[in-house]
Amino acid sequence: MDHDFVIVADWGTSCLRAFLCKLNIEENLKVIDSFEGSGVKTINGQFEEYLLAKIDHWRQAYGNIPLILSGQIGSSIGWKETRYLACPISPATLADSCLSFKAKEHPIYIVPGVSFEKSGTYPDVMRGEELQVLGWLQLDAKHKIGKHLLCLPGTHTKWVYVEDGEIKHFKTAMTGELFDMLTNHSILIQQKSTHFSTEHFLEGIECSKINNFSSLLNDLFSVRSKQLFGELNEDTSMSYLSGILIGSDVKAAINMGMCQMNEFDKVVIIGATKLSQHFSQALSKFSIESQLYDVTQASLAGYYLLCTNLFGAKATTYP
Amino acid sequence: MDHDFVIVADWGTSCLRAFLCKLNIEENLKVIDSFEGSGVKTINGQFEEYLLAKIDHWRQAYGNIPLILSGQIGSSIGWKETRYLACPISPATLADSCLSFKAKEHPIYIVPGVSFEKSGTYPDVMRGEELQVLGWLQLDAKHKIGKHLLCLPGTHTKWVYVEDGEIKHFKTAMTGELFDMLTNHSILIQQKSTHFSTEHFLEGIECSKINNFSSLLNDLFSVRSKQLFGELNEDTSMSYLSGILIGSDVKAAINMGMCQMNEFDKVVIIGATKLSQHFSQALSKFSIESQLYDVTQASLAGYYLLCTNLFGAKATTYP
Repeated sequence: MDHDFVIVADWGTSCLRAFLCKLNIEENLKVIDSFEGSGVKTINGQFEEYLLAKIDHWRQAYGNIPLILSGQIGSSIGWKETRYLACPISPATLADSCLSFKAKEHPIYIVPGVSFEKSGTYPDVMRGEELQVLGWLQLDAKHKIGKHLLCLPGTHTKWVYVEDGEIKHFKTAMTGELFDMLTNHSILIQQKSTHFSTEHFLEGIECSKINNFSSLLNDLFSVRSKQLFGELNEDTSMSYLSGILIGSDVKAAINMGMCQMNEFDKVVIIGATKLSQHFSQALSKFSIESQLYDVTQASLAGYYLLCTNLFGAKATTYP
Repeated sequence: MDHDFVIVADWGTSCLRAFLCKLNIEENLKVIDSFEGSGVKTINGQFEEYLLAKIDHWRQAYGNIPLILSGQIGSSIGWKETRYLACPISPATLADSCLSFKAKEHPIYIVPGVSFEKSGTYPDVMRGEELQVLGWLQLDAKHKIGKHLLCLPGTHTKWVYVEDGEIKHFKTAMTGELFDMLTNHSILIQQKSTHFSTEHFLEGIECSKINNFSSLLNDLFSVRSKQLFGELNEDTSMSYLSGILIGSDVKAAINMGMCQMNEFDKVVIIGATKLSQHFSQALSKFSIESQLYDVTQASLAGYYLLCTNLFGAKATTYP
C-alpha cells in the first residue's frame, strides 16, 4: 500500500478539529476535507456516537478508515484514558505507545500524553501539543539536532525544551485560560471588545517586563485603575490585559531555569496565527527573536509520522 | 450634644455592612444594632430606595439620623461618585473631604477614595480600606509614630505603607477575586469543598516561595497536574490553590520596592478573622511576624474619627 485514507483529529477540551487525509506512506498526508466540532467537555461522554455521526459522509465514501486522535480525548474526561509518557520522549516512543481499539470497525488510535516530573517541584503534563512538537521535528532535519525552545500558545501555553530530537522537559502557563476568565468574570473588563490595540498590548507587555517591584497579582489590577484614570477604555483594556498576561508568561519562561535563553538563537512558536504573532511581539520586547510555524502543518507532520509507524510495515493488514 | 445616634456602613461591591451606633462624641461609637445587605453591584442603581427600606425600623425609632458610608458606594458604579484623594493622606484630610447631601431628610456623608500615583508605574486606588487604616491609627497613640506596613486582605488585598500617621502609598493585589474566579470558572477546581487543609495550604505557600524558576502562571497549573498525579484531591485542591495565591501575594509585597520589609518589626493585618490568619501563616513562612486587628473595630474607630470631625464642633446643627 502506498496510498490510502486516514482521519486525524485534535480533539481538545473545547474544540474538535478533524481532517480527512490521503496518505502517501512514502511521502506525506494530504488534507482533502476537514471540519470543526465540539470539544471533549461538551460531548457528555457520547464520544463514539458523536464522532461517527460527524464523519458519516466520509464513512460512506471511504469505508472503515482508521482514525488517529490526539489531545484531551485521551484524558480522564475523554473517550479512553491513555497514560502520560515521562520525558525524555522521542518521536518513536510516542508512535509506539498509541492506544488502539475499534469502533464500528474503524481502527482508532489515541496518542498518549507526556509528563515531566522532577524532584523539588510539581509535575507537569501535556496532551496534544506533544504531537505538534514531534511534527515540527519532522519539518527540517536541522530540528532534530541541537537545542531548541518551543512555545505553543493556547488555553495553556507550553514551553517545550527539545534537544537532539527529544522532548527533554516543558512548562505550562495558564495564560489563555486566565485571559478568558478575566475578560468574562472579573471587574477588569466591563464590556468585551473585538478591537485589538497594538499600542496598549505593548504597554501591557512593558508593564510586566519593567515592574520588578510588583507581580502579576498587582499588575492585573492596573487594568482597572488605568480605566479609572482615563488611561484605558473599553476598546483598549483587553489588549492591555493580554499584554500583561503574555508578557508575564514570556518573562517567566525567560527566568524558568530549566534552560538558559541564551542557549537559543530564537524561540520557535507553533500556534494559531494571531496569537503566535502576539507572543512573537512579546518576545521581541524582551530582545528575543522568534520563528513562527503553522500549527496545522506541524500537526499533520506529526500525524504523518504516526502513520508511517502504525501503517508503514503492516500496510496490508488494514482495514 | 454629647450623645446621639449615627448609622455607619461599609457598602462594598458585594456586601453592605451597616451599624446603628450610639455616638458619645467625647469617647466612642457604640454599636447597638447591625445588619448585612446587598452590595453595590446588585442594587441596580436604586441606592436610596434600598437603603431607606433597610433602615426603616431604625428611622421609626430614631428619626432622621445621619449616615456615613464608605466603600464602592462612592465609586462610579455607586450612589454618588466621590473623588480619589492623592497620597499622602492624613486622617484630617479624609474627614474634611466627605461628600454630603440629604436623602429624605437624612444627612448622608460618603467617604472619598484614596489614590497613589507615581511616575513610571500605574496608578492605584482604594475605597473603604482607607477608613479602616485611619481607624487603626486611632487605636493606639504608637500607631501614629514611625513606619508601619498594613495588610488588608479581601477581594483585593491592599498593602498600605503608613508613616507618622499618614498613608504614604499602597499597592493592590487581585488575590481574592482571582481565587473566586479560579474556584468557580477554571479547570483547576472541579468540585468546590468547604474543607480547609492547613497542610496543603502551607504546601501552596511553599510552592510560591521556593519556585524561582516559575511564576504564578506556571504555579497555578500545578493545582491541576498534582490532581492528575494523586497529590491533591477534591478536599485539598482549594486549600493548595489558596496557598499559592496568598503566598504569591505576600512574596510580591516583600519584593515590592516601595518599602523595605526589614523596616518593620511586624506586619499589621486588618481583615476577616480566618483570612487574616491565613495571611499571618503565609507571612510567618517568609519569617515575618504579624499582628491581627479586627476589621470591625478598626472601621468603627475610623467612623468615630469622622463623627468627631463632622459633628464635633457643630453638634447642635443636626438633625
